[in-house]
Amino acid sequence: MMNKYSYKCFDCGKTYDKNEIENNLIYLCPTCGSVEKNQPLRGILLIEYDYEKIKNNYSKEEFLKTKKGKFWLYDFIWPIDFTNERVQKIFPQLNKISLPSDNYFKVNLEGKDIFILDDTRNPTLSFKDRASSLVALKAIELGVNFISAASTGNAGSSLAGICARLGLKSSIFVPKKIPEAKRIQIQSFGAELIIVDGDYDYAFDTCLEISSVKKWYNRNTAYNPLTIEGKKSAAFEIFISTNGNIPENIFVPTGDGVILSGLYKGFLELQKLNWIKQLPKLISVQASGSDAFLRFRQNKKFEYHSADSIADSICAGAPRALYLGSKAIDETNGTVLTVDDEEILEAQKYSAEKFGILIEPSSAATLAAFQKNKNQFDDVLLLFTGNGLKDILSLSKWNKNLNPLSLNQIKEKFLLNEKHNH
Amino acid sequence: MMNKYSYKCFDCGKTYDKNEIENNLIYLCPTCGSVEKNQPLRGILLIEYDYEKIKNNYSKEEFLKTKKGKFWLYDFIWPIDFTNERVQKIFPQLNKISLPSDNYFKVNLEGKDIFILDDTRNPTLSFKDRASSLVALKAIELGVNFISAASTGNAGSSLAGICARLGLKSSIFVPKKIPEAKRIQIQSFGAELIIVDGDYDYAFDTCLEISSVKKWYNRNTAYNPLTIEGKKSAAFEIFISTNGNIPENIFVPTGDGVILSGLYKGFLELQKLNWIKQLPKLISVQASGSDAFLRFRQNKKFEYHSADSIADSICAGAPRALYLGSKAIDETNGTVLTVDDEEILEAQKYSAEKFGILIEPSSAATLAAFQKNKNQFDDVLLLFTGNGLKDILSLSKWNKNLNPLSLNQIKEKFLLNEKHNH
Repeated sequence: MMNKYSYKCFDCGKTYDKNEIENNLIYLCPTCGSVEKNQPLRGILLIEYDYEKIKNNYSKEEFLKTKKGKFWLYDFIWPIDFTNERVQKIFPQLNKISLPSDNYFKVNLEGKDIFILDDTRNPTLSFKDRASSLVALKAIELGVNFISAASTGNAGSSLAGICARLGLKSSIFVPKKIPEAKRIQIQSFGAELIIVDGDYDYAFDTCLEISSVKKWYNRNTAYNPLTIEGKKSAAFEIFISTNGNIPENIFVPTGDGVILSGLYKGFLELQKLNWIKQLPKLISVQASGSDAFLRFRQNKKFEYHSADSIADSICAGAPRALYLGSKAIDETNGTVLTVDDEEILEAQKYSAEKFGILIEPSSAATLAAFQKNKNQFDDVLLLFTGNGLKDILSLSKWNKNLNPLSLNQIKEKFLLNEKHNH
Repeated sequence: MMNKYSYKCFDCGKTYDKNEIENNLIYLCPTCGSVEKNQPLRGILLIEYDYEKIKNNYSKEEFLKTKKGKFWLYDFIWPIDFTNERVQKIFPQLNKISLPSDNYFKVNLEGKDIFILDDTRNPTLSFKDRASSLVALKAIELGVNFISAASTGNAGSSLAGICARLGLKSSIFVPKKIPEAKRIQIQSFGAELIIVDGDYDYAFDTCLEISSVKKWYNRNTAYNPLTIEGKKSAAFEIFISTNGNIPENIFVPTGDGVILSGLYKGFLELQKLNWIKQLPKLISVQASGSDAFLRFRQNKKFEYHSADSIADSICAGAPRALYLGSKAIDETNGTVLTVDDEEILEAQKYSAEKFGILIEPSSAATLAAFQKNKNQFDDVLLLFTGNGLKDILSLSKWNKNLNPLSLNQIKEKFLLNEKHNH
């Protein structure tokens, strides 16, 4: 039997057999791949299906009926062998990693309707679960029960949580400056936490070195092709939720560029299958203190700047998927917008008060960018990628403590008008 | 047209017309109701439907097909007038308050299968959303757009969040000693926060006094009959999720006794309709520092003790629904179990590591109680009523910070065995 898919290098275009890559735990292109300090990755591999075959065997109408939230049902365009015995064995547990079915809805923002894809109620309350779940399923298929990752927070807690749900073990390598709340989330799920005496780059390299010797499956973002593949599920969900009528502009919080890359891949596949005519525009949103995509597009070359923003989930001085993510913006006629920390906190407040949705600063960035550029965009979808409770410190910045009030003070506050009216 | 339901007093048995109660914003029995300091409430009203009529018009099979998570579809046994214009107007927004569809599943605990009803991914990440959502819908039906509540944390943040989702305003009265994280959640959703210079009782009374003058709709737990009615939705969901085969023992975290009361009412209604033969046993779980139900059942009378436990959501010195909750335990042949704070934290760790589910201490109490009494119970369901991130302080108690490690130290830690083998 032919394999359902193969791997193709984004940079040099070379194609590889599925088994050659997966069975040897290879992640980047064996020909041109490289991991360099403070540099975007080279040689990211992308999964290629036989789109002509899919077109002949499946219809758009059939695909639009897929049950939402259960991404493993994509099957024919998903890199898991569903006949694998080990995969079949965990099927009863898959409900535990499903996404909410009502994560797509409309809200009104000052008279304008916009759409939200709300990943704040995923199993570990972030978008990262899409990648972690696929990586975990692949590990099970490969018979590896230990997964590692370098992380600044959300990817690590997501992997740790998904592993706990599916009975796998995890090791998470984090930089010295990990925020306390994120550290606690990772540890809670029983992951082995390794705090490296350095930054994210150092954690990344250390994680790869140890994982390779220990033969752990690795989930480093952008490095493992399944992180991009897992995130394409959001493109399919938007397609299904809108019954094929995808909004024109999709606002994407951008750090490493992997969400951009995954969405682009998903929409491109829908276009290859002739199930959509046009790609939606991917509007990349960066924090102004972490604007590598903006600068890369202005200067036509990458230059490392250290990054700093309250939106720690999208802080990336050297975005790992810079080249692929930039292509996603170019090919969809998208653009890059930046917002500063103050605007992010304002938008975080707005979302909680007006929509009743607590979001992380990185998600608030998409809302802030839309609010700032409202007149330029119609037909808009915002990605909400993380729950605000994952970063309660940011919420505390605009919710100050109040003084306790006596009954008399409370009466004065609320009943004064009534008194005056008597 | 006859009203779909009426109100009946749990204590004196007197029955009231729906409109008499609701249009006058009456909550407790006008004949015998009372709120007294450090005492359970008297005169709790319960909603009564015409069960004979329902039996003739609806079938069990039909009910079992109800879409999960969308509790407003219960319709014929739900106290909302779905033909009301104001209610119809907000129908498109109701997706925003739906519960996850996959909140019922099986886990394995040391060889024993148990079931979980997982409310940790509700809109504001707690079980309280069941009550808040129904109260909010009723406020909309009544044309009141301001809701108030006294709260020690979760009920307040739930009401604030649900109100923000549905475009209502809220005022939350909290005791001076509110945990910081819970205060921040309430404020974030744009509720008006009033910190009273006193305890929960003081907040309760103050909230009633101000609300009555301001004509706000009140959501005080147990006091507003719809808080009990809203929580009965969990009984229906268990019925639907198990296709009518409800587990024999249901472990219920117990503070005020409202979850007990709501579940009991729901199961009793299913029994009245002849859709189930036997009521499941309601196993009330209390923190040993807050064991009013245990003492009431031992001494046959209520005596106020101040309560203290890490499980703040089930801390209640004077449970508001003590008499109704105790009846729920009696009539279902249930019992009360207690667990101490150390056992609660151990169970919280267990759930995160083994199930991948972060739970609040109050939810961990049910798991702890089952673990402690495992040999006495088969066919068990645990309620997980709140997400662990709502109370990150409790997680920090068993997840200590670690020292950063150098590359050499990390290699030593992980690769020592490999070295020895060479």
